[in-house]
Amino acid sequence: MFDTIAAISTPRGEGGIGIVRMSGEDSINILSKIFRPISKKKVEELKNFTINYGHLYSGVNLVDEVMVSIMKGPKTYTKEDIVEINCHGGYLMTEKVLELVLSNGARIAEQGEFTRRAFMNGRLDLTQAEAVIDLIHGKTERSLSLSLDQLRGDLKDQILHLKKLLLDVVAHINVVLDYPEEGIDDPLPEGLVGNLKEVLETSDRLSASYNQGKMIKEGVKTAIVGKPNVGKSSLLNSLLKEERAIVTHIPGTTRDVIEEIINIKGIPLILADTAGIRNTDDFIENIGVEKSEKLLNDADLILFVVDGSRELSEEDLRVHNSIHSEKVVGILNKIDIEQKIDLSKLDKVGRWIEISAKENIGIAKMEEEIYSYIVSGKVEDSSQTLVITNIRHRSALVKTKEAIENIFETINMGLPMDLIAVDLKEALDALSEVTGEISSEDVLDHIFSNFCVGK
Amino acid sequence: MFDTIAAISTPRGEGGIGIVRMSGEDSINILSKIFRPISKKKVEELKNFTINYGHLYSGVNLVDEVMVSIMKGPKTYTKEDIVEINCHGGYLMTEKVLELVLSNGARIAEQGEFTRRAFMNGRLDLTQAEAVIDLIHGKTERSLSLSLDQLRGDLKDQILHLKKLLLDVVAHINVVLDYPEEGIDDPLPEGLVGNLKEVLETSDRLSASYNQGKMIKEGVKTAIVGKPNVGKSSLLNSLLKEERAIVTHIPGTTRDVIEEIINIKGIPLILADTAGIRNTDDFIENIGVEKSEKLLNDADLILFVVDGSRELSEEDLRVHNSIHSEKVVGILNKIDIEQKIDLSKLDKVGRWIEISAKENIGIAKMEEEIYSYIVSGKVEDSSQTLVITNIRHRSALVKTKEAIENIFETINMGLPMDLIAVDLKEALDALSEVTGEISSEDVLDHIFSNFCVGK
Repeated sequence: MFDTIAAISTPRGEGGIGIVRMSGEDSINILSKIFRPISKKKVEELKNFTINYGHLYSGVNLVDEVMVSIMKGPKTYTKEDIVEINCHGGYLMTEKVLELVLSNGARIAEQGEFTRRAFMNGRLDLTQAEAVIDLIHGKTERSLSLSLDQLRGDLKDQILHLKKLLLDVVAHINVVLDYPEEGIDDPLPEGLVGNLKEVLETSDRLSASYNQGKMIKEGVKTAIVGKPNVGKSSLLNSLLKEERAIVTHIPGTTRDVIEEIINIKGIPLILADTAGIRNTDDFIENIGVEKSEKLLNDADLILFVVDGSRELSEEDLRVHNSIHSEKVVGILNKIDIEQKIDLSKLDKVGRWIEISAKENIGIAKMEEEIYSYIVSGKVEDSSQTLVITNIRHRSALVKTKEAIENIFETINMGLPMDLIAVDLKEALDALSEVTGEISSEDVLDHIFSNFCVGK
Repeated sequence: MFDTIAAISTPRGEGGIGIVRMSGEDSINILSKIFRPISKKKVEELKNFTINYGHLYSGVNLVDEVMVSIMKGPKTYTKEDIVEINCHGGYLMTEKVLELVLSNGARIAEQGEFTRRAFMNGRLDLTQAEAVIDLIHGKTERSLSLSLDQLRGDLKDQILHLKKLLLDVVAHINVVLDYPEEGIDDPLPEGLVGNLKEVLETSDRLSASYNQGKMIKEGVKTAIVGKPNVGKSSLLNSLLKEERAIVTHIPGTTRDVIEEIINIKGIPLILADTAGIRNTDDFIENIGVEKSEKLLNDADLILFVVDGSRELSEEDLRVHNSIHSEKVVGILNKIDIEQKIDLSKLDKVGRWIEISAKENIGIAKMEEEIYSYIVSGKVEDSSQTLVITNIRHRSALVKTKEAIENIFETINMGLPMDLIAVDLKEALDALSEVTGEISSEDVLDHIFSNFCVGK
């Protein structure tokens, strides 16, 4: 049994409702010290899975008018008793309500501690716990959809299936070892070889899906560059305007960088400093050399914009020299008017996309081309197949794959069956790491430190 | 009956839980189209005031795993049927859930529309509705406490009491007018004169309490100025360190101004650009002339810091000349070392407070003095008496007071009783405006436009 934890589970800020959540065996008891239901019932008598109107008190002092949800374990998120206090939103009130439950015996929860308990208490496996935070951070519908699949248990089920296939092989080996007369040098039955093949193929396919999953989940960091007045801000507006899915404004990690997310076929393009682009049209100069170099280095994709209606200038060349050829896509803008530019000197650009941002020419085609550039033909239709989005899963699946490859080598060399036992164990352990059946405190600490407080 | 509205009721941002709330007669029906309870019950069969685990679907597509609260009117916040969907927090997921309910028949709610319905449907009077938003914006415990009193109905009850006193007088006048033989020229009975006196005194006291209420609610805009290296940042740190109540960081309205709130005896001092003070110690020069002038003009209180251990310099005088004498308090810093400054030229400063921020000398006394400077002896102990915090209430109470003063004038001039009927009506109408029994769309629009969406 764990102690009783509490946290503010809603985002910080001013809003209609704030939630302070408790989990642990003392939750109801703590609530009974501070909550007076309007029904005059005792807190202990409130029925399970009800939401109750009443008032919070600190001693004799009214703290807030609230709605309180009572959820007694084990059929709860953490499998423990959970109490959720819906108070008035706003910075101070939620703090006060949190302080009230803390001063009555709860402990402040660490990041992700509610979900960690859900994992520790066996309600979620580790892939499902990881899906929870991915859902909260999700930036496109497609990434949400991947996370939902994972939360539903798709990856867990797949991993458990692979483990079952391997355990069949282990059982056979054990029989052979226990009863040597069965023939320790006999080849592995064909069905079990099939098991190993399936594990090999699946772990290979899943680990390879990571690159795609990562892009869907984390997005492609994109910089729009070009000398002043080539139409960077018009390009940006075209991309935003053409957007049919949800476009979201995400506050940047620092106060001075605003990121905007453009969703191209479910892949988020993360555009840093769009405010800079919008407001000045020469933000690279504005933000200074050091910062712009960092922006260009960090970018996964650089959209280099030139104005086709003007002669190539020194400024174009200077921007051209600052970028890396392996991640640049050229945007030739203003193709609706007479063309004067000579692109031959801009040799870092392998492909030019012709548009007129102003006249809205070529925008849809540009999106297609950007998409195909990003995925470079590597992306299959992911709507039907499982895609992993987590580098931890990838490492474990690569380990699994390599162990099985070793097993096949042993088999091909005609070596005795008992030699594959070690590799089998390694493959099984790697799979157990994915689901968290095997896990260390360090790994768990790392995973849950990415959570928000209150989840 | 109103249509069914929906909004995200939690603050925007990444958090464990987001709430999408619906109110209106179609709420349950809309929910039934998108929610599948894990209990397999039909949505219509879910009991009132229960919280239910299940999944949201858009057609066949899983949207999220959620907890849904069912609250059927009339015993709800709006007196209508309310459904609250607790989904995963985060920008995108809450948006998706909101979109889902909107596409199934709800209308997006305007700012404060839930509370507006609570008012229109008679669950809250207007002072209570206003208290809701004050609770959310509350910056100190004392302001929360005032808002809670108001939400509980203290002001409403007081106003209704005043109205009752006036209605007794009206009743008397009506009798006199209906039955002239009762004596239209007779003086008002002493008891009713007492009624009028009480209304006069109370409306006078309440309207006068506004200045105090405003400070408690909105805080005192404070600027810390002084030439570089006089110890402005140490002073700031002392004030923050000495703080025993909750100190809150509130994001400024613009990205480049960070406000910090210091709570002095329940009165919030709002310090703009504290980051500037902390990081540079000469932020007035850093932020530029125009901005610093604006800061000084907007301030309710200026703390002008000088270094006692150095001779008065041109720079001190320049800062001195830029400030307004009526709102400046002088802070003489570094009194722990030899004093060289001559303060006589700094004649805009009426009072000097001696401290050593570094050695923590005089800080508590400084807070006392700042407090007494702010309240200028005008503040009584507000913990027992009603204080108003809203300029709308103040205007109406001033109107009430003036109408009653007119009545006393009429009485003192020995004029006939029926002449006071008009003033009585004016006083009653003003009081009814406070509680919202009389209200115009414009006034309501204005009040609720200060709300957040989702409340």
